[in-house]
Amino acid sequence: MQNFEYCNKTKIIFGRGTENQAGAETAQYAKKILLHHSGGSTVRSGLIGRVKESLKNAGVQWTELTGVQPNPRLSLVKEGIDIAKKENVELVLAVGGGSAIDSAKAIAVGARNDGDIWDFFERKRSTNSALPIGTILTIPAAGSESSISCVITNEEGPWKRGINFECNRPVFSIMNPEMSYTLPPYQTACGITDMLAHTMERYFTREPHVELTDELCEGVMRTIIRNARKIFSGGENNYDARAEIMWAGALAHNNLLSTGRVGDWASHALDHELSALFDLAHGAGLAIIFPAWIKYNIKEDTPRLARFAAKVWGVDGAFYDMEQAALEGVFRMENFFRSIGMPVRLSETNIDLSRIPEMAKRVVHFGPIGQYRKLDEKDAQAIYKLAAE
Amino acid sequence: MQNFEYCNKTKIIFGRGTENQAGAETAQYAKKILLHHSGGSTVRSGLIGRVKESLKNAGVQWTELTGVQPNPRLSLVKEGIDIAKKENVELVLAVGGGSAIDSAKAIAVGARNDGDIWDFFERKRSTNSALPIGTILTIPAAGSESSISCVITNEEGPWKRGINFECNRPVFSIMNPEMSYTLPPYQTACGITDMLAHTMERYFTREPHVELTDELCEGVMRTIIRNARKIFSGGENNYDARAEIMWAGALAHNNLLSTGRVGDWASHALDHELSALFDLAHGAGLAIIFPAWIKYNIKEDTPRLARFAAKVWGVDGAFYDMEQAALEGVFRMENFFRSIGMPVRLSETNIDLSRIPEMAKRVVHFGPIGQYRKLDEKDAQAIYKLAAE
Repeated sequence: MQNFEYCNKTKIIFGRGTENQAGAETAQYAKKILLHHSGGSTVRSGLIGRVKESLKNAGVQWTELTGVQPNPRLSLVKEGIDIAKKENVELVLAVGGGSAIDSAKAIAVGARNDGDIWDFFERKRSTNSALPIGTILTIPAAGSESSISCVITNEEGPWKRGINFECNRPVFSIMNPEMSYTLPPYQTACGITDMLAHTMERYFTREPHVELTDELCEGVMRTIIRNARKIFSGGENNYDARAEIMWAGALAHNNLLSTGRVGDWASHALDHELSALFDLAHGAGLAIIFPAWIKYNIKEDTPRLARFAAKVWGVDGAFYDMEQAALEGVFRMENFFRSIGMPVRLSETNIDLSRIPEMAKRVVHFGPIGQYRKLDEKDAQAIYKLAAE
Repeated sequence: MQNFEYCNKTKIIFGRGTENQAGAETAQYAKKILLHHSGGSTVRSGLIGRVKESLKNAGVQWTELTGVQPNPRLSLVKEGIDIAKKENVELVLAVGGGSAIDSAKAIAVGARNDGDIWDFFERKRSTNSALPIGTILTIPAAGSESSISCVITNEEGPWKRGINFECNRPVFSIMNPEMSYTLPPYQTACGITDMLAHTMERYFTREPHVELTDELCEGVMRTIIRNARKIFSGGENNYDARAEIMWAGALAHNNLLSTGRVGDWASHALDHELSALFDLAHGAGLAIIFPAWIKYNIKEDTPRLARFAAKVWGVDGAFYDMEQAALEGVFRMENFFRSIGMPVRLSETNIDLSRIPEMAKRVVHFGPIGQYRKLDEKDAQAIYKLAAE
């Protein structure tokens, strides 16, 4: 186990009706805020109406910026930064999923740091100053509601890049599982895949003696899988299943599961190229990449891959043949992804397979990726090819 | 799953050599502190010397109060409050286990609140103001290093009572597993029992649909049991086993495992009478009480007790006979406690069995105890009797 520091100060307010606490929570930090969301389902569901009512009752003023979309765009972030500065807002309140929250995080950084916001994503600058963020989560997926992560797409490129600044951790996050009832099944499935992937990125480590966090990761993954099956068997409005998924999504990415470990994160990098070039949903890309990544690494610490198959997917037989057990785990994972409507091959999407060499070149832009096994351009190309069809 | 709020702001600094960061961390909060510890093993091990060196290097001044003992005493707390006020200290730094930390917490409350500190423990007063607390943990057990709990023994009675104020959560906790190498086996075992008990108190709930936290609790308990066996099989200086135990002890009581659930806590109350009247170590008392508590409740949500036996103790057979499986779990738990040197019956200790009626009367001082099943004086007496021999 490695030495580590762990501190997560996000206040989680979880359960039915909690969106009505938005005003009171916000008022502890700000009198004037930027309210940031898609302007679509958040309005149609009546959620934004209730949030505004709550803000009004708490004496909080707001300026609104709508238009957030999946793979959130730099242009909207820049617009948000201008508004935040002009209006002197004191907090950014994101209502939505990871896209709204990440867009809000980038705005919060830009509002406190002059210059080109993209420089932070190009790793040219760092900061410990940002406006405070509050979130009202509607899509359990990214775990951005209690993480420091923020991923933005720069349309001029296109590039998809992330920053990780502690000052970007939300001060509060309101999570009402009922808000996820009306998600389209595809979005529910993408979210489930994303949170599984966040756990897998941490689970696949070469650090020995990380038993407690292994157990926690496995428990989180089993809970996600079991409750995903409930939701996709007619349980769209099953509060308890939606609640398990929503809380699991936050824990998958609040960094508790990383304590003492070194995660991998190559699969996230490999997926970012799919999202950037073809605007594929992040979860869908991960459902394609992860099985290929495991297959490519099947001889790298096979006992860990076999443990994953046994503990998470219920595969028996690891005592006879670890590699075979590990592969059976991949097979079951693919079946699970298919069962919730995710693609598991690039050929099932709009992705142009002839651009694999280009994607492999782009993904190592900052150097080799991954920690479980360092991957160079050739490795990346091989994994994209394994994922092809 | 119940609605909940969750926020734990303690900064954990975990691993080898981290005690040398004590000065730098403390300096963020205070120029002058109260350094609080036993004055025994903390000095002999050289730890206090290193901590003082670190404080000196960071320009932090200290006043020292030693003499903390297990089941920490109100008289020492009062002495600490007087010193803290007189010296205008700005933080209390506890070096030791739960006793040193709880003593420090009570001092921190008293330093900011005039009047009789015991009034808080008698539930006559509450507060949201206390000096900040820092801890350097040497005994993984109580989980007090990132919890709001504080339990003190009032020698005039004697009474053992607890307070739970958010302002008492440590601002930082330094955890170096090496500090636990030299613990006497009995203390290691008491600590292991205490952290298992903290998890069980949360695990035994009547709240349905708490799958994620069930999984997390079970993972924590399995990790504790497996690594306890390593330590008690010649692994006293096994860093990895000590590290798993130390981190598990914090997670067992930082309230993540309570999210969405209602814990029981009757067994802790039942043990407090043993500690208060006979100065029995907290862990030893819990090893005696918990098996009796489960036996007494064997018909109360038997499936949960059988799940505990299956998932934590590896008991097969629940599909044939849940009650029998649950009892087999208790049997294995008792064997485990015995294997690490814990008593499992009152008759193995110095406790006067003729005082059972008195203990049963005292334990319901504030009313019935427990949430899994409300226990009155008669129930308490029955459990003490089941635990007798």
